[in-house]
Amino acid sequence: MSDDPVSGGPVSAEFLADLAAASRVLAERGVVDAFGHISHRHPDAPDRYFMSRAMAPALVTPDDIIEYNLDSEPCNAARRGSFLERFIHGEIYKARPDLHSVVHSHSPSVIPFGLVDTPIQAMFHNAAFLAAGVPVFDISEKFGATDMLVSDGIKGVAFAECLHDKDIALMRAHGSVACGETLQMAVFRAVYTEVNSRVQHWTVALSGGGRMAVLDEEEGRLADVPNQGACMRAWDLWRKQVREEVNW
Amino acid sequence: MSDDPVSGGPVSAEFLADLAAASRVLAERGVVDAFGHISHRHPDAPDRYFMSRAMAPALVTPDDIIEYNLDSEPCNAARRGSFLERFIHGEIYKARPDLHSVVHSHSPSVIPFGLVDTPIQAMFHNAAFLAAGVPVFDISEKFGATDMLVSDGIKGVAFAECLHDKDIALMRAHGSVACGETLQMAVFRAVYTEVNSRVQHWTVALSGGGRMAVLDEEEGRLADVPNQGACMRAWDLWRKQVREEVNW
Amino acid sequence: MSDDPVSGGPVSAEFLADLAAASRVLAERGVVDAFGHISHRHPDAPDRYFMSRAMAPALVTPDDIIEYNLDSEPCNAARRGSFLERFIHGEIYKARPDLHSVVHSHSPSVIPFGLVDTPIQAMFHNAAFLAAGVPVFDISEKFGATDMLVSDGIKGVAFAECLHDKDIALMRAHGSVACGETLQMAVFRAVYTEVNSRVQHWTVALSGGGRMAVLDEEEGRLADVPNQGACMRAWDLWRKQVREEVNW
Amino acid sequence: MSDDPVSGGPVSAEFLADLAAASRVLAERGVVDAFGHISHRHPDAPDRYFMSRAMAPALVTPDDIIEYNLDSEPCNAARRGSFLERFIHGEIYKARPDLHSVVHSHSPSVIPFGLVDTPIQAMFHNAAFLAAGVPVFDISEKFGATDMLVSDGIKGVAFAECLHDKDIALMRAHGSVACGETLQMAVFRAVYTEVNSRVQHWTVALSGGGRMAVLDEEEGRLADVPNQGACMRAWDLWRKQVREEVNW
Repeated sequence: MSDDPVSGGPVSAEFLADLAAASRVLAERGVVDAFGHISHRHPDAPDRYFMSRAMAPALVTPDDIIEYNLDSEPCNAARRGSFLERFIHGEIYKARPDLHSVVHSHSPSVIPFGLVDTPIQAMFHNAAFLAAGVPVFDISEKFGATDMLVSDGIKGVAFAECLHDKDIALMRAHGSVACGETLQMAVFRAVYTEVNSRVQHWTVALSGGGRMAVLDEEEGRLADVPNQGACMRAWDLWRKQVREEVNW
Repeated sequence: MSDDPVSGGPVSAEFLADLAAASRVLAERGVVDAFGHISHRHPDAPDRYFMSRAMAPALVTPDDIIEYNLDSEPCNAARRGSFLERFIHGEIYKARPDLHSVVHSHSPSVIPFGLVDTPIQAMFHNAAFLAAGVPVFDISEKFGATDMLVSDGIKGVAFAECLHDKDIALMRAHGSVACGETLQMAVFRAVYTEVNSRVQHWTVALSGGGRMAVLDEEEGRLADVPNQGACMRAWDLWRKQVREEVNW
Repeated sequence: MSDDPVSGGPVSAEFLADLAAASRVLAERGVVDAFGHISHRHPDAPDRYFMSRAMAPALVTPDDIIEYNLDSEPCNAARRGSFLERFIHGEIYKARPDLHSVVHSHSPSVIPFGLVDTPIQAMFHNAAFLAAGVPVFDISEKFGATDMLVSDGIKGVAFAECLHDKDIALMRAHGSVACGETLQMAVFRAVYTEVNSRVQHWTVALSGGGRMAVLDEEEGRLADVPNQGACMRAWDLWRKQVREEVNW
Repeated sequence: MSDDPVSGGPVSAEFLADLAAASRVLAERGVVDAFGHISHRHPDAPDRYFMSRAMAPALVTPDDIIEYNLDSEPCNAARRGSFLERFIHGEIYKARPDLHSVVHSHSPSVIPFGLVDTPIQAMFHNAAFLAAGVPVFDISEKFGATDMLVSDGIKGVAFAECLHDKDIALMRAHGSVACGETLQMAVFRAVYTEVNSRVQHWTVALSGGGRMAVLDEEEGRLADVPNQGACMRAWDLWRKQVREEVNW
C-alpha cells in the first residue's frame, strides 16, 4: 500500500483540460517560457490542489496533471517528477482559503520591478488589481544566500506571509506569483501584470521623473469589478486558441 | 412586440464582413487584445451604427454584429450581450456627423501618453493626423473615482466633448479612441497611432531632452492628404490576410 | 502607338521573381509594412529599372513588376498604378552608376535617428556600412512645408544629392533609403539598418551618456568586406522562406 | 589521398540530429539570425568537434555537419564551405577541456553590453551563470583595426585567453560566445543571456541610477545548480518544437 496522501475525489475531464489549457495560454501569452506553473485547488476538497508534473508549460496535457495535498505531497505522482517550487502553491492555499488558483512565472517585463525601488503600479483598468499594492519577497532576508527557489514548506510559508492579503507578489531576482478566486482570474492577472509592466517601463521613461497619473487605490478597487467579467471574455479567446492545437 | 429601436434598413453582406474583418485586423496588428471594439455607422441611416456583441475582437464574425441607435440601444441583440462602453461610439456619432467609424482600444504603446505630461506627436507622415493635437480625457475630472469605463450616455457625451473636432483622443489610465470618415481610415489611424507611439518612445529616449524634428501642424495637414489613399493600400493587405483564415 | 518609353529588353523570369521575393523579405523582416518599395536596375540597360506597381510589399508577385526609365516614367504600366515616390529610385540610378538596387522604407526603429541630433552609428560588424556616416535629408530645407513625399524628379534630385556617395540616408519624419551594388546587398543593408537601430537604442540608454565603443571608420571599412559574402548567406535563408509560400 | 585530418570516429545519428536541431533552436529563440553557429565536441575524441558548414542556422540539417580538428581544419568538408570564425570553437576546446559545446551569436539585446562600461549582471536565477562575471573581448587591443572577426587561430587563442575560466564572454561591436559542459547547457546559456539582457535593459532604465538587487556571486553560484536540470526541461520543449518541422 502506498503512503501517498489520499485523493480529494474525482474531478471532471473538463476541469483537468482547463488547467492544462491554462498552462498553454500562459506560454502563448509570453508569461511563461520553458519554466513556470499554474495550479487549481480541488473543487470539492479544499485541502487538495492540482498541478502538472515538472515539464515545460507549453506541452502540458490533462494526463500530466498530479493531485497534491497542501503540504505539496503528491497523491498520484506514479514516478512523475514534481516541480521543486510546488510549495508556493500549497502554502498559499493553506493561508488563503479565498484563493483557488496560483500562477508562478518569470515573465521578463515583470522581473525588473522586483530589483529596484520603483514599485509596480496600475497603468490602466485591466491591471487595476495592482493598485492595492504589490509586496516584494526577498528570500535572502530570512534565508541568506540561497538558490533563490521556494523549494520547501518553510520557504513557502515565508512567501505566503509576504503575499499576506494581496493577490500578487513579486520575488526579487526571480519572478512573481499571481493568484485568483478562479483559474481564469489567476491567468488574467498573470497576463495583465506582464502587459502592465511593459506599459509602465515606457511610462516611467516618458515621464522623465514627472507626473504619472496612474490609477489610485479607490479607482483600482472600482475598476477591478468589471475585470471579474472581462476575464471570462479573455479566457474564451485564449481557451479557443488552445483548442485549435489540441482535441481536449 | 419588441420595444427595441427599429433597424435603419438592411446592409450588404460585404458591409458586415468588412466590419467583422476590421475587428480581426486590429487584433492581428496588436491594437486590440481580448478587449476593444470597432463600429461603423449605417451607410443609409446616419442615426444607426453597427458593432459586434461583447466578445474578443479576434473572434468576431459577421453573425456577431448588432445594430444600435445613437443612444446605443440594440435593434436586434436577441440575447447577445453588448459592450459596456458602446456609448463612446453612439455619442461620437451624435456629435460628429462627419465621422463614420470609431475604434476603441487599449494598445500598450499608446497608454503611457495618457498618463504623463509629454504629448503624443507625429513622428512620421503615416501618423500625420496626430499633428493636429490629441486631447486627453480624464474621466475623474467630471466623475470623480470611477471604474474608468465610459459606460453610459452621460460619460459618452463628456468623452465626445473632449474629442471635439479631432479624430483621436486618449483616455487617462485606460486607452484611446481613433475615428475616421470611413472604416478603413479609422483602422489606419488606430494602427498608426500605435506604431507612432513606439517610434516616439524611442525618439524621446534618444533625444535626451534635446531637439525632436517632428511634423509641424502644417506638415501634418499636408502629409495627411496622401494617407487618404494610402489607407486603402493598407486595408487591401490586411483584409486579404483575414480572408486567408475565414471564408467571408 | 504608345508614348511610353521603350523597354530596355527582356529579363529572366528569375530576375523578376527575385525582385518580387525581395519585397516580401523586407515585409517579413519588419523593414516595410503596408508601405515601402524596392527596385532593381535593368541588368542590360542601365537607364531602366524595375519596381512593383503601387501595392503592399508583402503581396507583390512577378506579374506586378513594372519597368521604368530613369525619369521614372513607366514603360509597361498598362493601367497599373505607380508608387508616388518612385523618383527616389530613378534619380539615385541617374546620379550613382555604381548602385543597382534601392530600398525605401519607414521601419520604426530607424525613424528616430532622423528626428534628433544623435547620429546613427555602427553597433556591430553586420552594420559596418553605417560607420561611413549617414546623411539626413530634411525635405523642408529646400521645399518648405510639404506632404513629406519625394514625389517628383526635382525632389528626387535633392534627395540623391543628399545621399551623395553614401549607401544609405535617412529622411526626417519619414523613413530611410538603403542602396546596394546588388539586390541582395540593398536588402541586407535595409535589414541591418533596422537591427542596428534597435541595438543602438538600447546602447544609448545603457551608456547613460558615457562611452560607446562603436565601430570606428576604419573598422567599419574593413568589417564591411566580409558582408559582401555574408549578404548572400542571409539571402539564401530569406529567399527560401519566401519560396515556402509561393511557387516562384 | 587527402591531407585532411582523420576523423575521431563515427558518432550516432542522434548526436548529429541534436546538433542540427540546436542550430534551429537558437534561430527560433532569436539568439541567431542568418548568422551565428554552434559546435559540439566529439563524444569519443576530445581533439575533434562538429559544426555545420557555413550557412544560416535555421536551415541546418544533419547532412550539413562537418568534423574539425582543434586547429579547425575540416576532416570531411568535401567542398562544403566552413565558417570563417570556426577558430573561436577550436581554440576554446584546446584551452578548456571541461567545455563540450560553444555557441557564437550576435543577439541584439546582448551587443550593447559589449559597447559600454555597464557590465552585464544576473537579473534572475535562470541567468545565474552571469553572476561569476563576464569578460569583454576587444579585438582591437591586440590586433588594431580589423574586420572584427575571429578568423584565424591566433585571434582564437586571444579570445580563449579572454574567456579564461568563464563560460561566457562578450565581443566588442560584434556579439558573444556562450559555452557549456553539454550541448544543452550551451544552448540554455545562450538563450538566457539574451533574455537576461532584455531584463537588464529595463531594469537599468527603471532604476534611474539607483539600487539594483541583482544576484550576488554566492547566490549566482547556488542558483546555477538547479539550472543543470532545468536546461534539460527547456531542451525537451525546444527539441520537440524542431521535431514538428523536420523528421530527424
